[in-house]
Amino acid sequence: MYKIRVLNSEDLDKVLEMKDVIEAVETAYVQYSNGEAKLFPVISHEFEPGLREMDIKSGFLSRTGLAGLKMVGYVADNPDKRRIPALSGLVMVMSIETGRPVGILDGMVITNLRTGAAGAIGAKYLARKDSTRVLVVGPGAQGRAQVHGLVKVLPGIGHVRVAGRDPAKLAKYVDEMSSIYGNVAFMAVSMDDLEDSVSSSDIIVTCTPSHEPYIKKEWVRPGTHFNAIGADFSGKQEIEEDLLPGARLVADCRVQTLETGEMQTAFRKGIISASDVAEIGNVISGEEPGRSSQDEVTIFDATGMALQDIVTANLALVKAMERGKGSLVTM
Amino acid sequence: MYKIRVLNSEDLDKVLEMKDVIEAVETAYVQYSNGEAKLFPVISHEFEPGLREMDIKSGFLSRTGLAGLKMVGYVADNPDKRRIPALSGLVMVMSIETGRPVGILDGMVITNLRTGAAGAIGAKYLARKDSTRVLVVGPGAQGRAQVHGLVKVLPGIGHVRVAGRDPAKLAKYVDEMSSIYGNVAFMAVSMDDLEDSVSSSDIIVTCTPSHEPYIKKEWVRPGTHFNAIGADFSGKQEIEEDLLPGARLVADCRVQTLETGEMQTAFRKGIISASDVAEIGNVISGEEPGRSSQDEVTIFDATGMALQDIVTANLALVKAMERGKGSLVTM
Repeated sequence: MYKIRVLNSEDLDKVLEMKDVIEAVETAYVQYSNGEAKLFPVISHEFEPGLREMDIKSGFLSRTGLAGLKMVGYVADNPDKRRIPALSGLVMVMSIETGRPVGILDGMVITNLRTGAAGAIGAKYLARKDSTRVLVVGPGAQGRAQVHGLVKVLPGIGHVRVAGRDPAKLAKYVDEMSSIYGNVAFMAVSMDDLEDSVSSSDIIVTCTPSHEPYIKKEWVRPGTHFNAIGADFSGKQEIEEDLLPGARLVADCRVQTLETGEMQTAFRKGIISASDVAEIGNVISGEEPGRSSQDEVTIFDATGMALQDIVTANLALVKAMERGKGSLVTM
Repeated sequence: MYKIRVLNSEDLDKVLEMKDVIEAVETAYVQYSNGEAKLFPVISHEFEPGLREMDIKSGFLSRTGLAGLKMVGYVADNPDKRRIPALSGLVMVMSIETGRPVGILDGMVITNLRTGAAGAIGAKYLARKDSTRVLVVGPGAQGRAQVHGLVKVLPGIGHVRVAGRDPAKLAKYVDEMSSIYGNVAFMAVSMDDLEDSVSSSDIIVTCTPSHEPYIKKEWVRPGTHFNAIGADFSGKQEIEEDLLPGARLVADCRVQTLETGEMQTAFRKGIISASDVAEIGNVISGEEPGRSSQDEVTIFDATGMALQDIVTANLALVKAMERGKGSLVTM
């Protein structure tokens, strides 16, 4: 018999801080890009296309000494029919040293935080240091997490516009975020007025499940940085592919962005090649260049990797152990 | 927030009974063979070949309404260096209806029981009804579980010989099993005296990690049934492949036995073809024939499927809920 720590969403809210998650995810990116960490093939299954699916993402980090997985279930009509969230899931962490599981954690808080951290890292290494104006498309949980991340790495951010189709959701976003960040001006914009916001932003975060690109190349001004968060499946796209060939392209995982991420259409059409895409881990370690000038457009595609979940889970387990949070179950 | 039931090895020992597990695994086999259940690709990684590995097996059963996975870690020197078992792991079960995880269970008790149940099902449908003499090669946990399963389906079993290389392990096996089954005669045999035992057994269970076949074709008498349990990886084999072409071949999963199971060598050499191998689910449902005569040699290869783990876990969760066993954690 042995003990495993279990951390639920409340425990995770108590022990995880965005600035620590950003550091942890940076180490995962570097280990991945220099070959010290590996991803296993993603398992993804649609029981009913678009309505009911599950996926299992897994991998390991040799240097950290951990392996693990995240299992996620998605049921579109959960909120309407069952009054429960559409997404749920768990992260399991295993010690490579002993082969034993060491923790089980709620998967949704971890996903939100590690994806917010991903965007923060993209902006930290690629956005202009003097960035002040942000546009977030998609006023959901991830639209919030992205801002929580950005303000940690770019303290000059003073204006955030949020775009979406549902005025009530936008109003709620502005209300909530304004109360957290008193020194940032939040404003809602309609998807029909996107051009103005795009052309006057330093950083644009796309986090919708769109299958149609809604960011037009002609709207984008020089020097803009994009965090492409939404596209993580075949057919998803948020930014017109014609913008890509002239931009500095960086991904968390080159293979994933070209197959299922924001860069899939441009790659399939042959207007970009694999060698045009740097990996953020190599940009962090200085092996590949990031932004080359104030005028360059930069695009970071965060496709999402199990390694982010594993290091974030590990961080939470360490903090929870220090502070006696969560529950211990005997296995 | 929602609750998940956690069952450890002690909880599982209390709620799981072999006869129920046999029934549950039969339903998994039938669902798999008629297309109502599917396996996802197995993830298997060796950190240090033969010494340190992990694997993740997963799948779902539409009719049962469950998906899930088992993550297992293996560290060969755990017993010597860390005084803990070499194998450990967890099973996670998810509801397809809600997408939510419903339970987390110790993986080792479940693996033992569901594999014991697999052998029992193989013997129930393929061994001669008048079988009385069993040979078990491999005096480990699985060598015990196989006998726990066999005696449930073939009450005539009165003699069990157990073979292995370590006399101390054999003695312990005989001692333990004799105290459980007073009406069965247990006897240890050396691997050097295998011929005698093979040629006088009705049922032979192979459950070693051998990469060299140690069961010779010439020793096997007509009418013998084999449960091939050990071979589950490229290169593993326990029975001489020349025995296979003349025997009735049945597997839990046709693809797995031909790729990584007991039938891999015979298939690769071309002395059997895929159409020679029936699936046990189809034998259970009557769609494919089982044993055709008292003289036929039958071989059942239990390669192991996540579906067995999921149905066994579900059975344990239902029983534990009825009896208030295990612990509930809030996620």
